[in-house]
Amino acid sequence: MSEQYTPPKKWVWEKENGGEWASLNRPIAGATHDKDLPRGAHPYQLYSLATPNGQKVTILFEELLEAGFAAEYDAWLIRIGDGDQFGSGFVEVNPNSKIPALMDYTGDKPVRIFESGAILMHLAEKYGAFLSTENRAEMLSWLMWQMGSAPYLGGGFGHFYAYAPYPMEYPIDRFTMEVKRQLDVLDRHLANSKFMVGDEYTIADIAIFPWYGRTVHGGSYDAAEFLDVGIYKNVIRWADEIAARPAVQRGQMVNRTSGDPSGQLHERHDASDFQTKTQDKIG
Amino acid sequence: MSEQYTPPKKWVWEKENGGEWASLNRPIAGATHDKDLPRGAHPYQLYSLATPNGQKVTILFEELLEAGFAAEYDAWLIRIGDGDQFGSGFVEVNPNSKIPALMDYTGDKPVRIFESGAILMHLAEKYGAFLSTENRAEMLSWLMWQMGSAPYLGGGFGHFYAYAPYPMEYPIDRFTMEVKRQLDVLDRHLANSKFMVGDEYTIADIAIFPWYGRTVHGGSYDAAEFLDVGIYKNVIRWADEIAARPAVQRGQMVNRTSGDPSGQLHERHDASDFQTKTQDKIG
Repeated sequence: MSEQYTPPKKWVWEKENGGEWASLNRPIAGATHDKDLPRGAHPYQLYSLATPNGQKVTILFEELLEAGFAAEYDAWLIRIGDGDQFGSGFVEVNPNSKIPALMDYTGDKPVRIFESGAILMHLAEKYGAFLSTENRAEMLSWLMWQMGSAPYLGGGFGHFYAYAPYPMEYPIDRFTMEVKRQLDVLDRHLANSKFMVGDEYTIADIAIFPWYGRTVHGGSYDAAEFLDVGIYKNVIRWADEIAARPAVQRGQMVNRTSGDPSGQLHERHDASDFQTKTQDKIG
Repeated sequence: MSEQYTPPKKWVWEKENGGEWASLNRPIAGATHDKDLPRGAHPYQLYSLATPNGQKVTILFEELLEAGFAAEYDAWLIRIGDGDQFGSGFVEVNPNSKIPALMDYTGDKPVRIFESGAILMHLAEKYGAFLSTENRAEMLSWLMWQMGSAPYLGGGFGHFYAYAPYPMEYPIDRFTMEVKRQLDVLDRHLANSKFMVGDEYTIADIAIFPWYGRTVHGGSYDAAEFLDVGIYKNVIRWADEIAARPAVQRGQMVNRTSGDPSGQLHERHDASDFQTKTQDKIG
């Protein structure tokens, strides 16, 4: 149970092997190269990728459009594996260099918004849609629960189970235990609630579905058997219902670059793109 | 660089040594024992502990009171080392079994709120205070940045540097790199901004200060030298200014059970408690 390692007094950055994403991890922030972002015709310009955090936003945009709001958007692809998030234009929109990042040109002056949870709040409040009318406190609680919990699923469990350079028992055990606890929190809540906030489908569902719905559907890190996801029956019932929504299906296609090619819409500039599928315009 | 470990097909819970907090980590949610929560005279009942997440809320309460709002509250101690968060009454307020958790009795019916970020939003919106009037999108972005980033500081870096059963090089390297990147994100932003959102002191500052202000002040995990916190001069300038606020000093005392005894107010039921310091009424 012990490793031959003693931390130094002061940590030093050594650019050695750190797993699949190692070349993209740095202990400093800021841009690494000059690159302007493209801008399309619509009032919203989204710079993203179809990770779970990216999907939250494209699902909400598609839900807003489905509900009849004029929330037309251009979705541009940010290839995080290639370091697009470190371009100067992207860093101006999100100094944290993570997708998704949004520019809102609907008002008197342009507004940047970063962090998926903030983008969900910004858009839902702007249109007064997909917010709870009955219990805002409960909606905020579950939205924030997702923001604070998913790092244990993605940066914790996902990293050590799927991406780290070799399997480490203690970190895998630690994060597996936490992810299963989180799934059980959801399962107990959804035993008595149709959606996260009673009968209202809100941004709390839209935030949680791409992470935990994907997990119980077996799509996270090939870990369905390892996590024994079949026991979370209420989460599966809830995830099935959300996955069947047309806007959710469209939202999951936007900025997707992996999986079945028929499910990939690398960029989205118009509702008709889902039919014509103009793949990888800038690629 | 390789450990002799192959993950099983299906993970099994083994209650073995998992570091300092191991006995409190479980892969299932819900209450472990029946225990009602106490209730005091004020409209807000806070159940918490002076961790960084707990301090966010007590700082905001003290700021609201300092600003003249009638936000009187009782702050009850939840000893997470003793498992108080798994009592039935606490789980009803927060099914996620984490502090802080709040009951709001100001309206027609009682409302529960959990997750520190949600409690900050709930209270700030109720009084229309400590919200940005100039740029709500920027405030939401940094508030959500804190919620999604601090798990890498607490559950990642803090756990592996200070609490894990033995030092592991790869996880310590991974989370140190990320925490230093986060500090640099803040440092670059605060080079050109008095507070997180321009000249306005908001809940974004109140959320970020207990985690990252504490870190640059050397209070997180005895890691000041390891993280070389002295280089983040803009974060230090910002943290110094916030630390000097009387409400922040009071907020950091509430529900505190460690450190200098003169800085510990185990429970808070009245403004005069900071003078009389009725320590550990229920202890």
